[in-house]
Amino acid sequence: MNPPFLCRSDARRIARVLSQVENRSPGCASLMKECWKQAGGAWIIGITGPPGAGKSTLTSSLIRKFREEGKTVGVLAVDPSSSFSGGALLGDRIRMMEMSLDEGVFIRSAATRGSMGGLSAAAGDMITVMDAAGFDVILVETVGVGQDEIDIIREADSVILVLVPGLGDDIQALKAGIMEIADIFVVNKADKEGAEKLEREIVYILGLSPVRKEWTPPVVKTVASKNDGMGALAEKLAEHHRFLRYTAFLREKRKQRGAEKLRKLLLEGIEKKLKKGPLAVGEEEKLKEDFVGKRSDPYSAAEEILDDLSWEGTE
Amino acid sequence: MNPPFLCRSDARRIARVLSQVENRSPGCASLMKECWKQAGGAWIIGITGPPGAGKSTLTSSLIRKFREEGKTVGVLAVDPSSSFSGGALLGDRIRMMEMSLDEGVFIRSAATRGSMGGLSAAAGDMITVMDAAGFDVILVETVGVGQDEIDIIREADSVILVLVPGLGDDIQALKAGIMEIADIFVVNKADKEGAEKLEREIVYILGLSPVRKEWTPPVVKTVASKNDGMGALAEKLAEHHRFLRYTAFLREKRKQRGAEKLRKLLLEGIEKKLKKGPLAVGEEEKLKEDFVGKRSDPYSAAEEILDDLSWEGTE
Repeated sequence: MNPPFLCRSDARRIARVLSQVENRSPGCASLMKECWKQAGGAWIIGITGPPGAGKSTLTSSLIRKFREEGKTVGVLAVDPSSSFSGGALLGDRIRMMEMSLDEGVFIRSAATRGSMGGLSAAAGDMITVMDAAGFDVILVETVGVGQDEIDIIREADSVILVLVPGLGDDIQALKAGIMEIADIFVVNKADKEGAEKLEREIVYILGLSPVRKEWTPPVVKTVASKNDGMGALAEKLAEHHRFLRYTAFLREKRKQRGAEKLRKLLLEGIEKKLKKGPLAVGEEEKLKEDFVGKRSDPYSAAEEILDDLSWEGTE
Repeated sequence: MNPPFLCRSDARRIARVLSQVENRSPGCASLMKECWKQAGGAWIIGITGPPGAGKSTLTSSLIRKFREEGKTVGVLAVDPSSSFSGGALLGDRIRMMEMSLDEGVFIRSAATRGSMGGLSAAAGDMITVMDAAGFDVILVETVGVGQDEIDIIREADSVILVLVPGLGDDIQALKAGIMEIADIFVVNKADKEGAEKLEREIVYILGLSPVRKEWTPPVVKTVASKNDGMGALAEKLAEHHRFLRYTAFLREKRKQRGAEKLRKLLLEGIEKKLKKGPLAVGEEEKLKEDFVGKRSDPYSAAEEILDDLSWEGTE
């Protein structure tokens, strides 16, 4: 048998592979093929919510919790306001540093950039790299507002949606669909006024949505900065993990994830092909001039290009 | 000469066409071809910023301002927290109702849903419909966090980024790239503490970014709920509009918009084609099983499908 392609203890190599994948550098696909073979063992937990909800602090507490259980943890922060990837207070930074000295923890941030779907394709692959490296748990932190971020969080097995009192009116500002993908709701900063009200709102909204009789998302109150409620959260998480494993859901999620990944890769690849073909610089310039001059329009041009598009062998 | 395809005074027909476009119903492309011929006269203003920045109130004030100047106004709200599309306070709703009684104002919201790029393609087309209908000004309100939303705001000729004091730390939570596309910064709720600090922060960040010597984005302080500062904002907007028209920028923006539209239409169309071809239900199910069973992986499958993809006539 060959030695494993990636090994958890080789942090430098993991970091290098992650960079290649994030930058979509040539050879990225063949790296990912190897990673795919090794991947599938990790428990992927998504942590999302609006800016200021305390996602990073919660993530830190969860890292500590999992470390106490002897589990190794990979962290991917896809959140510009995350203390893991940027805007950290000094206290946060010190905590981060302590954690990064622990060999069982690997922390990485992904830049939120790139065009349509670019970020979510890269972030999804980065999760697979960490999975292949053999971490027991992978925590993915993202701000829960854009479509890209939702696409990323869909990669997770268990999704935590973090909300805080006082942002109550902003539940509706969350991306439509995010309430539906949450497996566990956390009311963080639960010592603040309005925590009960927020909890009632969540329960109310959950009541309105179509019943998911297999799993009813619980609401957990925490004060992550004081480590309050983390035991209850860890318990609910473990319960959800058991639920996934003992039903067909984990396999179904994995299947869905594979399909999503293929779709993203195809869109990414097709966009590249377009830029070499019908949307090559000169062609595109001519089209643009024709559009502005009303000699043509994007709708007719799109029809023509799509008509000429075909898959060999599939027809 | 044929009668115009769409007419500003026929609000029912405009609403019907907008729904067809939003739902991507069959025949949508041929409607859009007609719209494209008529479009190009409107001044498209994008209003974006985080939830709670007061974008809707600012939009209302701008509508009033433009109506005073005798301009007709179309409004497209692509913001789940917008008082135009949903989460409105009673006072907002009453103001909205008054405005919707004015024949020179047409208000429409677009649902934030759909998959990758779906929303932004539909919203872009809805702007073109309103443009074709002959409104002098089109105000597009979107929450400035996701990639989809940024893609929509790129359709605008003039972009206003609305910020408020107290969300200062959240400048960094705004989607990377949004600072770069703003033509005018508004510090709203400028009677609150921290307004000066926020203004300094914006000026500082603007100083860090590569110099755009053609147009330096001004910072305008407003209290939209009291109609304060709206004169100054209207003036800066008019200045930007003149700048666009007297330089090559307006034409350049329009060209860019055509290219963007084509790209979105192509991705949308290709996704449909994928679902009829290599990603048809049965095919996809087989692929998913192979991925989970490690007999294949999404990267190899994507390569194979992309290799088989070609454009007739373009090679």
